[in-house]
Amino acid sequence: MINFLNDYSVGAAPEVLDDIVGLSGESFLPYGGDRLCQEAKKLIAFDVERDDIDIHFLTGGTQANLTVISSVLRGHEAVLASEWGHIATHETGAVEATGHKVVTVPHHNGKVIVEDIKKALSFNTGEHMVKIKLIYISQTTEWGTVYTKNELEELSEFAHENGLWLYIDGARLGSALTASDCDFTMRDIAEYADIFTIGGTKNGALFGEAVVITRQELKADFRYYIKQKGGLLAKGWLLGSQFISLFRDGLFYRLAEHGNAQAAKIREAMMREGIPLASASRSNQLFPILPLSLVVELSQDFLFEIVDKVREDRAVVRFVCSWATDDTSVVLLESALAKYNFVEGEV
Amino acid sequence: MINFLNDYSVGAAPEVLDDIVGLSGESFLPYGGDRLCQEAKKLIAFDVERDDIDIHFLTGGTQANLTVISSVLRGHEAVLASEWGHIATHETGAVEATGHKVVTVPHHNGKVIVEDIKKALSFNTGEHMVKIKLIYISQTTEWGTVYTKNELEELSEFAHENGLWLYIDGARLGSALTASDCDFTMRDIAEYADIFTIGGTKNGALFGEAVVITRQELKADFRYYIKQKGGLLAKGWLLGSQFISLFRDGLFYRLAEHGNAQAAKIREAMMREGIPLASASRSNQLFPILPLSLVVELSQDFLFEIVDKVREDRAVVRFVCSWATDDTSVVLLESALAKYNFVEGEV
Amino acid sequence: MINFLNDYSVGAAPEVLDDIVGLSGESFLPYGGDRLCQEAKKLIAFDVERDDIDIHFLTGGTQANLTVISSVLRGHEAVLASEWGHIATHETGAVEATGHKVVTVPHHNGKVIVEDIKKALSFNTGEHMVKIKLIYISQTTEWGTVYTKNELEELSEFAHENGLWLYIDGARLGSALTASDCDFTMRDIAEYADIFTIGGTKNGALFGEAVVITRQELKADFRYYIKQKGGLLAKGWLLGSQFISLFRDGLFYRLAEHGNAQAAKIREAMMREGIPLASASRSNQLFPILPLSLVVELSQDFLFEIVDKVREDRAVVRFVCSWATDDTSVVLLESALAKYNFVEGEV
Amino acid sequence: MINFLNDYSVGAAPEVLDDIVGLSGESFLPYGGDRLCQEAKKLIAFDVERDDIDIHFLTGGTQANLTVISSVLRGHEAVLASEWGHIATHETGAVEATGHKVVTVPHHNGKVIVEDIKKALSFNTGEHMVKIKLIYISQTTEWGTVYTKNELEELSEFAHENGLWLYIDGARLGSALTASDCDFTMRDIAEYADIFTIGGTKNGALFGEAVVITRQELKADFRYYIKQKGGLLAKGWLLGSQFISLFRDGLFYRLAEHGNAQAAKIREAMMREGIPLASASRSNQLFPILPLSLVVELSQDFLFEIVDKVREDRAVVRFVCSWATDDTSVVLLESALAKYNFVEGEV
Repeated sequence: MINFLNDYSVGAAPEVLDDIVGLSGESFLPYGGDRLCQEAKKLIAFDVERDDIDIHFLTGGTQANLTVISSVLRGHEAVLASEWGHIATHETGAVEATGHKVVTVPHHNGKVIVEDIKKALSFNTGEHMVKIKLIYISQTTEWGTVYTKNELEELSEFAHENGLWLYIDGARLGSALTASDCDFTMRDIAEYADIFTIGGTKNGALFGEAVVITRQELKADFRYYIKQKGGLLAKGWLLGSQFISLFRDGLFYRLAEHGNAQAAKIREAMMREGIPLASASRSNQLFPILPLSLVVELSQDFLFEIVDKVREDRAVVRFVCSWATDDTSVVLLESALAKYNFVEGEV
Repeated sequence: MINFLNDYSVGAAPEVLDDIVGLSGESFLPYGGDRLCQEAKKLIAFDVERDDIDIHFLTGGTQANLTVISSVLRGHEAVLASEWGHIATHETGAVEATGHKVVTVPHHNGKVIVEDIKKALSFNTGEHMVKIKLIYISQTTEWGTVYTKNELEELSEFAHENGLWLYIDGARLGSALTASDCDFTMRDIAEYADIFTIGGTKNGALFGEAVVITRQELKADFRYYIKQKGGLLAKGWLLGSQFISLFRDGLFYRLAEHGNAQAAKIREAMMREGIPLASASRSNQLFPILPLSLVVELSQDFLFEIVDKVREDRAVVRFVCSWATDDTSVVLLESALAKYNFVEGEV
Repeated sequence: MINFLNDYSVGAAPEVLDDIVGLSGESFLPYGGDRLCQEAKKLIAFDVERDDIDIHFLTGGTQANLTVISSVLRGHEAVLASEWGHIATHETGAVEATGHKVVTVPHHNGKVIVEDIKKALSFNTGEHMVKIKLIYISQTTEWGTVYTKNELEELSEFAHENGLWLYIDGARLGSALTASDCDFTMRDIAEYADIFTIGGTKNGALFGEAVVITRQELKADFRYYIKQKGGLLAKGWLLGSQFISLFRDGLFYRLAEHGNAQAAKIREAMMREGIPLASASRSNQLFPILPLSLVVELSQDFLFEIVDKVREDRAVVRFVCSWATDDTSVVLLESALAKYNFVEGEV
Repeated sequence: MINFLNDYSVGAAPEVLDDIVGLSGESFLPYGGDRLCQEAKKLIAFDVERDDIDIHFLTGGTQANLTVISSVLRGHEAVLASEWGHIATHETGAVEATGHKVVTVPHHNGKVIVEDIKKALSFNTGEHMVKIKLIYISQTTEWGTVYTKNELEELSEFAHENGLWLYIDGARLGSALTASDCDFTMRDIAEYADIFTIGGTKNGALFGEAVVITRQELKADFRYYIKQKGGLLAKGWLLGSQFISLFRDGLFYRLAEHGNAQAAKIREAMMREGIPLASASRSNQLFPILPLSLVVELSQDFLFEIVDKVREDRAVVRFVCSWATDDTSVVLLESALAKYNFVEGEV
């Protein structure tokens, strides 16, 4: 089977694994107190162009989200997310399990817009309702789109003017930073977000998410939350090592760029065939709307996800490319699409 | 000010208070272990026409909701409610604070419909999403409407066929049972719901909600939850006494009927004036859509709530009648409406 | 049966109930926004001799404790209490249910001492352990004793020097303030505690605990917590009315004094008989160590609680007096004790 | 520095890492749905000699504990542990953060005994107290001792006769199964425990704990809890691969045996020197009581942990051996101990 199911099917980029193997037999201080974690933090801080930030390493995205959100909020405070926000749909109520409501707003190409936050704030007034305190956005979004620099600035300014914090879930931040329509830098992310993550799991690491805290008020005692929520890895140097591999010489960006580039080729093929796309994504995820007969046909050779049925005979499906997507896979998918005999009006 | 703000502005029906005064100086076993609570339970069981039910008394509605829901659900399970459901909007995330997601669906005249539950179930599949286990509905709804017997039956059957429970928030169950469009009995409520409440606070008690558990599986250890959530009243006999007053000879129903009847008069007055109503409520709450100028004018003499602005110059407002609403108040509101000079096209 | 079971068996002091009855038929703003609550707050503030405090009214003690503690602590922070602290033993894990550990230390006549807090702090170091942030003490303690002014000052100073807060559970604060060995005032309580409660339930009210917040940092958004935890009473004026009755002209203190005085008589009777007391309590609770045969005999006429078996043939039992304990009850208990034929060595 | 700090300082056993490297470039189904996890489960089931068990893989011990305990308990139920139990002391209140109290009892050589559970049960009665439902024990214990087969049987029988479950935290189960005083098998563990873990992190894996559920009632929906608590690893095959390495041909036991053997040599050396041991551990952890001057001297060359000061001039320290502890380290420690000039009466 040719794999377009997700960006975490294949192990790790060779450099990442080689570095771990190279450390075989060495001993380290536990729980991230080792020298590798310190070095990895310096490398990330260099890219962020800030030395006044705190950085922590966790193993997974849901873990990072629930740890961050529960550390930021008081008991009566809520986080606002898009109705498609990962925390709102695909984390088994992890945020609610820490006691906090996720207030949802409609999405616009996967994005949260200020207008909707305003409405939510004006609806949630007084102590009979939760107090919205944190804005959660994903970059790239769950629909593969990226917020522009202007959009990030607008959200950040609005948040801060209204006593809110902005959290950017960067599980696919590599893809965002290297998307063809990206107009911002890692430094911008750190400027606009009060806290954000840099995803390794979906971009060449075996596992690992870096949490970057830029806002002074949010730094205190974060390690207590990591431990309490079960995220403090005994052999934390494993995370340090992987983030060194990713940030030592730009591997993080090259890996993401490759995934985006492979997706771009498939996107062009889809447009050639006149296949409509449910999302304007220019990153590593594509969301074509396909006739069900094609979905069935493709599923014999390819792994991918069915997101939603849109009509009786159509479905939105998701194809994901990654650092590990080779040209052969892309070509095979392109030719499968080309081979399919689209009935008139079908696309 | 003439009060249409809510149905809990005025103390208690005279009978309720008299009974408490009559007990002055007596001593009782604490925490509901007294003879009054036992007697009140018998009276309610008589109306429910069931002797296989558990009954508990709590002081308030949010307290009842969070205690019931947290006792019914395992950690990964969620409750489904209408987007206007009281637990979804006006309880400060009380359910989430006990660790559970409230999954919302659109409302239809305030009601949850099976079709929407089906969609929610088919969207929430597998361990990356919460498991919907409980359906929450309010009777009357937050828009004053009542589920018909057929609708209750349909929801109940669907729930049970799909391994779900049905919880009816009866904070205004008195108003529902005596609404002009009510076609069900207290016994029906107990038949269709696995657990439900009977509201005293909004129907003549100083405070008090009875929780009725009809489903065997949901009975165990409920008192632990009452205590843990802070709802176990030391002088529990106060609750017993009030529910005796309400259910000894039908006071509960007479009080609710009065509130509904007063609302019906106002409703007719509104229809005479051609004022559109945002809800088809036949119970004690009315939701007219009024020109803002009238809203301003009325607010000089009347207490009521603005629910929502619908257009630049229109608002949905809420007028609530209760056991304590006297004829004078009704007449004054009617004449205020009659006096207002509706501009053409304004209503 | 003659009742020494607790101090909340009998309804309310006549003045308290009369005031409620006198308000019959009046209407009030909901949720404590009424004029009675405002007036009650002024009366309490007068006794506290402070105008920079926030006051809130809740219905019960467990509710007050869980609301206060969850509002004060961040997720990784813990509250320290005596092993006999009410929150540690008799609240069904209410504090833990809000996510926080209760760290316990040994008690000394029911009291927490600084030495033990120091040990707990030096044991709990770093992010693998909870961060102790709040000291919980009860005044009177669960053993009826009272902290002296010096002890309160020492605890408060130690807390503040170490970045901790001090919370005083005053469910029986009236008894403490009028105990024969009391050397502090309400003002002192407010000076030493960052947050404390004044119990009405056990001192003549139908129900009701006032939460007093003296520390600026702990005031924000407390009402959100009240609502979220189910403690926001719709007819909040009921609480306002009761605290007016209690604090208008010193009724609160007179009621407590009566309970203490009745207990003092019984205490003297016990000492005359040579009955050992498990606690040095000078307030309204007595903890004699009785031969089991006497326990059995007394339990035919008297209601009281068995706290603990101390030897095969001895038990610590608890007799509680209150504002409602009449002279006849006291005399009957005294004569029952005098009548009992103590075998040599039995006491 | 020579490392006796813990058993998770060094990466992974060569076989474990080699297997991961050997999979480089392969793609797998996510979240443990891969073939490696299935194979690892079969290997473990073979050792457990049961085919009616559920097995899940998590990354760490605290994560496993909080996931297991929150999945087993209803909201009002508590887990009982020794006062030194890992969940009671070193997990930052992780269990409480899921809403449950940890009831502690004294330890006896690190062990929980039935007599103390009985006392705890008889103290916790009725709805004002938590309901103890789960017994937590660690094998080996936090003091390196192991429960005998008889002790396990007694605890298990007592638990089941009293409606409780038994959970064995096997973070160091390998060390227990290969301790010189071990008289039980993996099969026994599965017979006595309703749910238990098998620790990889401290026994040669990069990370990884297997959760084994033997009790039918505890199996349902466990994966929801893993996901909700942030423990569902995207590349779950990493866990499968490691447990294959450990259980394919007994590596798990050989690694643990090595750690125990190295500790045994050091233990003998300590006994030769007359150094008292605070624990009767025959597994891989040693707890000598050392003069402070020796502690200072050793800490210049060796990494180890100070557990507790016992007198002004004495401390209990912990030396841990593992699969990675080489003979040189052992010899160096032995000679450091031999070289030290014990003052008379010092040991």
